[in-house]
Amino acid sequence: MQKPKKVVLAYSGGLDTSIILKWLQTEYGCEVITFTADLGQGEELEPARQKAVMLGIKPENIHIVDVREEFVRDYVFPMFRANALYEGLYLLGTSIARPLISKHLVDIAHAHGADAVAHGATGKGNDQVRFELSAYALDPSIRVIAPWREWDLTSRTKLLEFAEANQIPIAKDKRGEAPFSVDANLLHTSSEGRVLENPADEFPDYVLQRVVPVEQAPDQAEMVEITFEKGDAVAINGEAMSPATILTRLNGMGSRHGIGVLDLVENRFVGMKSRGVYETPGGTILLEAHRGIEQITLDAGAGHLKDSIMPRYAELIYNGFWFSPEREALQALIDKTQEHVTGTVRVKLYKGRAATVARWSDHSLYSEAHVTFEEDAGAYDQKDAAGFIRLNALRLKLIATRNARVAAKK
Amino acid sequence: MQKPKKVVLAYSGGLDTSIILKWLQTEYGCEVITFTADLGQGEELEPARQKAVMLGIKPENIHIVDVREEFVRDYVFPMFRANALYEGLYLLGTSIARPLISKHLVDIAHAHGADAVAHGATGKGNDQVRFELSAYALDPSIRVIAPWREWDLTSRTKLLEFAEANQIPIAKDKRGEAPFSVDANLLHTSSEGRVLENPADEFPDYVLQRVVPVEQAPDQAEMVEITFEKGDAVAINGEAMSPATILTRLNGMGSRHGIGVLDLVENRFVGMKSRGVYETPGGTILLEAHRGIEQITLDAGAGHLKDSIMPRYAELIYNGFWFSPEREALQALIDKTQEHVTGTVRVKLYKGRAATVARWSDHSLYSEAHVTFEEDAGAYDQKDAAGFIRLNALRLKLIATRNARVAAKK
Amino acid sequence: MQKPKKVVLAYSGGLDTSIILKWLQTEYGCEVITFTADLGQGEELEPARQKAVMLGIKPENIHIVDVREEFVRDYVFPMFRANALYEGLYLLGTSIARPLISKHLVDIAHAHGADAVAHGATGKGNDQVRFELSAYALDPSIRVIAPWREWDLTSRTKLLEFAEANQIPIAKDKRGEAPFSVDANLLHTSSEGRVLENPADEFPDYVLQRVVPVEQAPDQAEMVEITFEKGDAVAINGEAMSPATILTRLNGMGSRHGIGVLDLVENRFVGMKSRGVYETPGGTILLEAHRGIEQITLDAGAGHLKDSIMPRYAELIYNGFWFSPEREALQALIDKTQEHVTGTVRVKLYKGRAATVARWSDHSLYSEAHVTFEEDAGAYDQKDAAGFIRLNALRLKLIATRNARVAAKK
Amino acid sequence: MQKPKKVVLAYSGGLDTSIILKWLQTEYGCEVITFTADLGQGEELEPARQKAVMLGIKPENIHIVDVREEFVRDYVFPMFRANALYEGLYLLGTSIARPLISKHLVDIAHAHGADAVAHGATGKGNDQVRFELSAYALDPSIRVIAPWREWDLTSRTKLLEFAEANQIPIAKDKRGEAPFSVDANLLHTSSEGRVLENPADEFPDYVLQRVVPVEQAPDQAEMVEITFEKGDAVAINGEAMSPATILTRLNGMGSRHGIGVLDLVENRFVGMKSRGVYETPGGTILLEAHRGIEQITLDAGAGHLKDSIMPRYAELIYNGFWFSPEREALQALIDKTQEHVTGTVRVKLYKGRAATVARWSDHSLYSEAHVTFEEDAGAYDQKDAAGFIRLNALRLKLIATRNARVAAKK
Repeated sequence: MQKPKKVVLAYSGGLDTSIILKWLQTEYGCEVITFTADLGQGEELEPARQKAVMLGIKPENIHIVDVREEFVRDYVFPMFRANALYEGLYLLGTSIARPLISKHLVDIAHAHGADAVAHGATGKGNDQVRFELSAYALDPSIRVIAPWREWDLTSRTKLLEFAEANQIPIAKDKRGEAPFSVDANLLHTSSEGRVLENPADEFPDYVLQRVVPVEQAPDQAEMVEITFEKGDAVAINGEAMSPATILTRLNGMGSRHGIGVLDLVENRFVGMKSRGVYETPGGTILLEAHRGIEQITLDAGAGHLKDSIMPRYAELIYNGFWFSPEREALQALIDKTQEHVTGTVRVKLYKGRAATVARWSDHSLYSEAHVTFEEDAGAYDQKDAAGFIRLNALRLKLIATRNARVAAKK
Repeated sequence: MQKPKKVVLAYSGGLDTSIILKWLQTEYGCEVITFTADLGQGEELEPARQKAVMLGIKPENIHIVDVREEFVRDYVFPMFRANALYEGLYLLGTSIARPLISKHLVDIAHAHGADAVAHGATGKGNDQVRFELSAYALDPSIRVIAPWREWDLTSRTKLLEFAEANQIPIAKDKRGEAPFSVDANLLHTSSEGRVLENPADEFPDYVLQRVVPVEQAPDQAEMVEITFEKGDAVAINGEAMSPATILTRLNGMGSRHGIGVLDLVENRFVGMKSRGVYETPGGTILLEAHRGIEQITLDAGAGHLKDSIMPRYAELIYNGFWFSPEREALQALIDKTQEHVTGTVRVKLYKGRAATVARWSDHSLYSEAHVTFEEDAGAYDQKDAAGFIRLNALRLKLIATRNARVAAKK
Repeated sequence: MQKPKKVVLAYSGGLDTSIILKWLQTEYGCEVITFTADLGQGEELEPARQKAVMLGIKPENIHIVDVREEFVRDYVFPMFRANALYEGLYLLGTSIARPLISKHLVDIAHAHGADAVAHGATGKGNDQVRFELSAYALDPSIRVIAPWREWDLTSRTKLLEFAEANQIPIAKDKRGEAPFSVDANLLHTSSEGRVLENPADEFPDYVLQRVVPVEQAPDQAEMVEITFEKGDAVAINGEAMSPATILTRLNGMGSRHGIGVLDLVENRFVGMKSRGVYETPGGTILLEAHRGIEQITLDAGAGHLKDSIMPRYAELIYNGFWFSPEREALQALIDKTQEHVTGTVRVKLYKGRAATVARWSDHSLYSEAHVTFEEDAGAYDQKDAAGFIRLNALRLKLIATRNARVAAKK
Repeated sequence: MQKPKKVVLAYSGGLDTSIILKWLQTEYGCEVITFTADLGQGEELEPARQKAVMLGIKPENIHIVDVREEFVRDYVFPMFRANALYEGLYLLGTSIARPLISKHLVDIAHAHGADAVAHGATGKGNDQVRFELSAYALDPSIRVIAPWREWDLTSRTKLLEFAEANQIPIAKDKRGEAPFSVDANLLHTSSEGRVLENPADEFPDYVLQRVVPVEQAPDQAEMVEITFEKGDAVAINGEAMSPATILTRLNGMGSRHGIGVLDLVENRFVGMKSRGVYETPGGTILLEAHRGIEQITLDAGAGHLKDSIMPRYAELIYNGFWFSPEREALQALIDKTQEHVTGTVRVKLYKGRAATVARWSDHSLYSEAHVTFEEDAGAYDQKDAAGFIRLNALRLKLIATRNARVAAKK
């Protein structure tokens, strides 16, 4: 295969992607363009620019972009409309960020006439799949370079040697092995590897990056009111806010109250099980509130349909198929159900739990007139239930009759 | 329709079913047989016997049965193998008890040659459906009498008048309206109606029947280890116990720590929304632990399949189709997946949350050799991922190529 | 309940609905408005007008409407996008017409200020459900009158007596019982009842109303080319046509070649099984052709998703839930998948079978370059398959390893 | 990787697998063990033995096994219980044979202490995946050799040169390219490649290997009665037969009547579309008859559940996951539903169609008493339908009320 001439690299400014940057230059002799996204990971990005310059990247080849609003509006919120949970528990915080990054890599590649994109994900994980499926779906002729699957820098020692030989600065705390690996964005922080590798060992508190250990959460509960329009959060405590602002605020509240910590062993798309610790403070509150508003505004038919396709939808996102016809078709279904998911939910935040305690809406389907234990003025005729039950029972009776008849013959 | 001659009544000993008992006698002139089940609702049952005697029931027609082990072993545990949650949140505590009661009613009817069974559920709720579908499925020729749908005792006043006219003792606290209605068994307590009817109002603490308000839970976390065999809990902290004993123990722990309280607006089978407060202390711990053990012992293929059919399974139970071919077929699927769901989970109980913190099993599928960040000695060849991704991407590339071709033509 | 003042009746002009018309007038003393739809059932509708006049309906209260294009465009075609088959075989020809009729009944009721609508379906079938659910979904305050469930005209003799007493003309061939009951529209003709009631008896040829018995079909095959745009048929043999014209043409071809006859025992929504003979000549060709064009234009991901939700979609239509949020959400999913279902299919019609023999499209995803047995010039690297298989196998290997380990311990 | 010492080869006796045999010997210097299965492909197998001997295989290393009964009993029949169709149309004739072959390869490998198995499938198709996933699932430490993915015999010319250089006899008709590629077993014959590669071209009649072109089928229909027990065919026209005998008989009938020919463009697991012509004469009759018997013996609840999971089940088999926990769990579900699928179906065979015309069973759920148009003696109370419909409509009314309320506010 020919060597690539221009490569757009997903560049964090950290040691690993700096080594990749240098390796691309030396291995392929190619021009490198960097893309560094502010996904709300909570780090300064200007050092990434300086480091890129220092590694010889031309200023016009350095792209640092604040994608927080795009991330929440076009990726996180559509996913939350589905109440998506992978394997019943995981809020997909890492999975949902990858397609966005690939989209920017491909767009920048087109703008620069680059022939390849590169990422820093290893060959064991899900992220390589997510980056690459997204890139190929957006540009079937793009080339994706995954240095971790190609190079021979297979040990920490070799990586550090390569860094030193290439004048890549190594922060003191990166000399040794990190005790675990971290990924972060506005939706979540994930930690995995090393000290977390044995699922029979409890994770130590120092693994938590952004949520306070629940024992340290305040003794006083906090109430928050979240307002939704067509399935998306639009206001907190009555104040309208942009998508990213809403998630940022909820993160603050959730982190303070120890909310959204998950210790999970999950099934990777590449076939193995892995253990991760996830912190999704704002997302956990948002999911609870979205369920709360759906409870009064979403019909049983649409709701049960959504529930039944949710696991598949979540699996598609987890596996990297965001940009696929089947995810888009499911999204069309989900979005259709959200037309009346409008209203407000009060959630109580306390010691690691976000719990819906009240909800109201002009779009409510809840009918106190029908459900009341009091006299209902004819809203509901209890005698209807007799026919309803008898016809629902008819096939069960026919089965029982048949079974008895067959049994009697034996 | 002819009047029934012998009727088996699901009898709690309370005011309402005592009125029903009397009404059956007076309305139909029939012999009444009572069935009172100890489902773990936490009430003395001997008073029910005395009251039945007082209301003229012959001793041989009074059946008081401890069904707790049967309930947990044959109903609760099979359901928990599925991680069943109705509408994402409800643990089905009331739903799962109804078919068992119907089964006993029908069995007793057969033993006594009775031609009907009767229950005290109203015409607005799900329980009438559950009782009756179960009864008809077990005996297609049985007759089910639902006095609430038939009689003209349509107000509290009329009920009390009927009671007085028939010498039915009325406890002082039953004179006024209860502020809400309660159902309880070993799995859960549910409260609904009256003060709970407006879903925009927070429920007052006094609604809670068995779980302490989370603010009053201990400041010290408690750890519990639950051992599973083929999907069922068999031991707590290393001590083997019967199913009902396990659930009772977990209830004790959960109640103390404020665990398992749910404020939900749900969709009833009969077409309306209703609001309930559910307390499922032990069940909430059990679900968390069962998920924890599945995480390491259940394969992704079987696990995702289970997840995808769970909403339907839960809906069937909620709607009263426990004794249906489709529930049984789904159960066969679920049970098949549980053959290796064996091992132990440690769950941390603290301030309303039960959280898996560790799990281990001889049946584990977790392979540290494959997932490790360290040198894996060839367990996994990262280069395989390249082909895996390329073939998964192939159809996405073909789509993108097609779409570009079509767009170019326009 | 109060008597209705104005009722819109779905009126065919036949004996049964004429009796209903009269019964509504005499039973309720109400004004009757008639709605007679040309659904392509192949009958003259002017006699219905004359008969309505004769029965005392004011001319301005008689509505005869040609709804054929609306029927095919807004009901049949959206359904065919889904390849909908109830219980694997039934093309839903009756089910899909009912919501359209209800829509017109409700619209006319609004225009006339009528307080009720009425239909001639019996209390045993699915049609009553379909009519009524549709009407209630479109107007929750409308009243639906189903005379067959209300009146005491429970035998043929009583009906004829009522007709004679009310000067309703009775065609000679209606004096005796029809040997079976027929429903027809542009999509299909269904026959059921009486001579068809024993599913162990073959149906006699005279049951067929529109399709020739296959033995009488021509010995010469006929080829037809159907062109689709976004999932809908738009041309036959290169000639653009309206939806109803397309279905009419295909009906002609299919009928001639003995295509689309189905002898089925199906499960009614009301709980019993029934046996019907269905003739869907054009629809059967259309389904085959739609599948043919999807084969080359629809991606596996979207296609398998569609397949998996199709049974539920078909069941919703069969059960009468056309105007429900869940049908509409599924439709959004299906329509999303049809954006590129554009191209042409050649179908061979011969002796009862419609078989796709060729298909081509500018939107094709079929890539001869990839699939060819010849040298593929690098389009596909066979070595990729090794990694693809190894990662797909990984979890199966881990399972086998675990199972062997567990077995060895025993 | 080390060279394998002993390899079990799936050997047909044809040119391609003979070349593989020789290539294994020369490339790896390994001992080769051959496995040739009589799957009902309709070829003499003794020539395969002679050829193997001629190529230097020791007699004790040659395994020729008649697996027809095993194939139909343990693979085909379980699959037919599900009415499995891939992408709505394909009866999975090739897919279902592969796991059986892998099972024998692995068993023979264990018996001989071999360290690898080998197959002759190419790197573009599904069969490689099916062979290998099955092998790995049965023995996670087995090595699978796929010469087509490894060697450099990438053209017909090179293959023939290799054959000549190694004294492999080449049948005259194998000198040139075959116009298409064929796979056959008792269930079906598939043809693909070369003259079939353009899906816009009709396939020529000479492609058909076992079914007569429909124009040449007899002008006289044939009736066949198939009896089922628990979902499996056990007798034809009243005569009990073994599974393979039944399928053989039905193949004879179907082939004569032009039944079971399918021209399909399908989606391969490896990501591309391919076109095949499938002949499944007996299987097509069997599917029709199985559906026929299910129509009267299977309840709607179980039947609709089966329908809803069928696409996934079929996809699993197509993709090679026969030996997977999820296929086995689905099988448990399916088998559970078949307990009463017992009875007889009469199918009419005529000019390419197999059509159920009658069915009867002691296990029938069909109740003429309920469905009859005649007086039903109280079996069914039409008034029940009113309540049934009203409660089914309740949520639709609440939605319509809500929507009108919201619209009015705007």
